[in-house]
Amino acid sequence: MIQTLGVIGGGQLGRMLALDAKRMGYYVVTLDPAEHSPCGQVADEQIVASYDDLGAIDALGARSDVVTYEFENVDIAAIARLEQSGHAVMPGSGVLRVTQDRVLEKQFVRECGIATTVFAAIDAPSDLDAAAATVGFPSVLKLRFGGYDGKGQWRVGDAAALRAAFAEGGGKPAILERMVPFARELSVVAARNARDDVVAYPPAENMHHEGILMTSIAPARVSTDVVDRATAAAMAIGRRLGIVGTYCVEFFHTIDDELLVNEIAPRPHNSGHYTIDATPCSQYEQHIRAICGLPLSPPRLLSGAVMVNILGKGEGNMLDGVVDLLADPSVVLHIYGKRHAPNRRKMGHFTMLSDTPVTEAAIAKAQTLAKKLHWKTA
Amino acid sequence: MIQTLGVIGGGQLGRMLALDAKRMGYYVVTLDPAEHSPCGQVADEQIVASYDDLGAIDALGARSDVVTYEFENVDIAAIARLEQSGHAVMPGSGVLRVTQDRVLEKQFVRECGIATTVFAAIDAPSDLDAAAATVGFPSVLKLRFGGYDGKGQWRVGDAAALRAAFAEGGGKPAILERMVPFARELSVVAARNARDDVVAYPPAENMHHEGILMTSIAPARVSTDVVDRATAAAMAIGRRLGIVGTYCVEFFHTIDDELLVNEIAPRPHNSGHYTIDATPCSQYEQHIRAICGLPLSPPRLLSGAVMVNILGKGEGNMLDGVVDLLADPSVVLHIYGKRHAPNRRKMGHFTMLSDTPVTEAAIAKAQTLAKKLHWKTA
Repeated sequence: MIQTLGVIGGGQLGRMLALDAKRMGYYVVTLDPAEHSPCGQVADEQIVASYDDLGAIDALGARSDVVTYEFENVDIAAIARLEQSGHAVMPGSGVLRVTQDRVLEKQFVRECGIATTVFAAIDAPSDLDAAAATVGFPSVLKLRFGGYDGKGQWRVGDAAALRAAFAEGGGKPAILERMVPFARELSVVAARNARDDVVAYPPAENMHHEGILMTSIAPARVSTDVVDRATAAAMAIGRRLGIVGTYCVEFFHTIDDELLVNEIAPRPHNSGHYTIDATPCSQYEQHIRAICGLPLSPPRLLSGAVMVNILGKGEGNMLDGVVDLLADPSVVLHIYGKRHAPNRRKMGHFTMLSDTPVTEAAIAKAQTLAKKLHWKTA
Repeated sequence: MIQTLGVIGGGQLGRMLALDAKRMGYYVVTLDPAEHSPCGQVADEQIVASYDDLGAIDALGARSDVVTYEFENVDIAAIARLEQSGHAVMPGSGVLRVTQDRVLEKQFVRECGIATTVFAAIDAPSDLDAAAATVGFPSVLKLRFGGYDGKGQWRVGDAAALRAAFAEGGGKPAILERMVPFARELSVVAARNARDDVVAYPPAENMHHEGILMTSIAPARVSTDVVDRATAAAMAIGRRLGIVGTYCVEFFHTIDDELLVNEIAPRPHNSGHYTIDATPCSQYEQHIRAICGLPLSPPRLLSGAVMVNILGKGEGNMLDGVVDLLADPSVVLHIYGKRHAPNRRKMGHFTMLSDTPVTEAAIAKAQTLAKKLHWKTA
């Protein structure tokens, strides 16, 4: 019986995971380089160490009945080391090998018989012309490894811009992806356990600003057919990947009604935060259930939801404007306990519960409340 | 702006309070004599000290922007001391003076124009005959101060039994209360803030076994008239008491359709646990909002609920049978992180979300699942 969960990474995803784990009675140990991290604040223990401190990783493994992580760019070598020394780590290193590499990831999705945008790998300057010919313009150059929240990505309109972007990326391995005119981004958060049970939440509809998710609307305002196709694709991907845990598949829903997989996140996802407040069993609890060998909970939507991220503004670390926010009986507030609020850092979010389907009025109300939030110095 | 909450008492109520406080971004310090208490496990800090360690109480006050407590038998002197030294403590000592004394409490309820059962104070053996004459039999002798979960209570059928019970209680001040044939026990969890805003959750219907709450059903299966009367009485009591925070008023709903107040708990209450899972803003969050001067959230029921307590059995500290429980997509599990499970100790609870009104089938299903739970040794 699993009693102690080890969590590599002490950020907000780890924190929300730990909050659910503690509610369920688990003992939680997290590993993060920064003392009293968002997750460490609510965990039983924090090991303060850098992610590549293999001694610390070993110590976490020794303390834990199962180890997981809250960010997908965790060091594969560290995960593999834990596996080799007989520790349970979920998801496993095989999953990371696919999801950390944008080229392998897209190839994998295609092997599942699921569409992606047209892409080409660029490992060296000599690949640039062939990639441009395959993919065309406008397109997006992305670093093949690493990068998140729009970092390590460049929109390019011609061959010269592509060459410049590749140089700006330091000549590191990259992928060129065709930009497709899309109506909306959808995401499906799902969870799979080792018995191959898979559950999927209703798709969310995501709105970004400068590469960062700002708002998710759930359930997405799309036809049943689109819901079914997205859900089936997400479930097939999870099964083929053999992932154990919660994961997210992001799609572009094109103006031609195609669903193209954009990426796979092998962890709970920002667009699934709504599941904390709008369903009995959040994406975090599903993750815990999956990695602990417990039954998954078929998602049940108690309410529609509009989730809005609260980003740092570069100054101040105290949130002002919460009185108006909390006066709304449909709002649930989540603040991550980060001490500093640099520009565009994810500091918290709120969920506005709403009717199903979510109305424009609910979205407008959420956005109005979000605009009243400001950071000030305590 | 309030950033740090101090919580005297590290039990499950403090833990659930801290889980919500952390979600909302507060810094939480708890004070409890037992290291790594249920609340301490999820708080930022725990001061390990006994409740009457005034130096530790002062230290908690100094660390906190507002201090609260999770059990109503907290030492009034300690609370008054914090108040006198200028610390914000909520609810205040005046509330405790009323609610810690079963005689004052019932007198107070009557002063509110709200009915209670017939009662009489017994401070000395010489009061026994007069009390028996006033109250009659069968009746219940309760210690005037202290006692919880049925402890310090004796059902008495005649004068001899009354005399024996009073002696068994060590001759301590007591109250004799007439037993009334009642159809059900109802409770209303409500919250009041310093602006005199009051919100009340739908009444819950409570089922006890040997003095301990076993099951709560919300909303209670009673007429709108009963809901309105119970809610109005609870709100009036909170206002007149001047409490700031979440509180609970327990009623006997008699077979003659009368509502008699049984007791007032000046804190979140076991029968309000359902609000965590069935409403956007739990009784714990309302408490935090109230003591932090934030707007209360008018309760909104997303679902009906059956809450079942999970009690210790005296042996084993690992819960078996959770697989069946978690396989039900309507179940939300809460385990309090207590290391030992002595007989009848509250170790956790689960909420089964259900249709509204709650059906007999949902109650039966919850009870069937509860029976499958067993403690074993890890």
